[in-house]
Amino acid sequence: MIRVVAKFEVKPEEVTNAMPLFEELVEATRKEDGCAQYVLAKAGEEGSFVVLEGWESKDALDVHSNSEHFTRLVPQLVSLCGSAPVIDSYIQVI
Amino acid sequence: MIRVVAKFEVKPEEVTNAMPLFEELVEATRKEDGCAQYVLAKAGEEGSFVVLEGWESKDALDVHSNSEHFTRLVPQLVSLCGSAPVIDSYIQVI
Repeated sequence: MIRVVAKFEVKPEEVTNAMPLFEELVEATRKEDGCAQYVLAKAGEEGSFVVLEGWESKDALDVHSNSEHFTRLVPQLVSLCGSAPVIDSYIQVI
Repeated sequence: MIRVVAKFEVKPEEVTNAMPLFEELVEATRKEDGCAQYVLAKAGEEGSFVVLEGWESKDALDVHSNSEHFTRLVPQLVSLCGSAPVIDSYIQVI
């Protein structure tokens, strides 16, 4: 299992615009083959979000990264951020 | 749901010693009430680990933080790290 932690720092004034994009991304992604987990969570600071992902294979993650919804929505989300997303990926051990 | 991302930078030469501690911590924690997820994953760099946690309530997380296994094992794990763990917690939105 591949685990991805993707942090988005959305500008506080853009959070209202970002939410429907996150919702569409989460809904579409959870339907994808090999998607074991796709969760949006927020930190204490306004606009600080994390997407926590679980993928059953590298192939499944690659399909996701090239999907219509990802390639359409993520650039829009990034445009609402004050900095580039920080994306860390891991291999599940236990 | 509370989501926790806890990063541990174990010294490469201590990874062998850290693994049984992680294993015991994961096994005991997964039995706890309110523990929705407790996963150990590793990054590309040797010794770079993350624990991805899901807790159904703040109370459940507090019980965990004061549990016998946590209070015994986590200090031992930290002693094998080159720097303090970085712990981020989030509230699940979707």
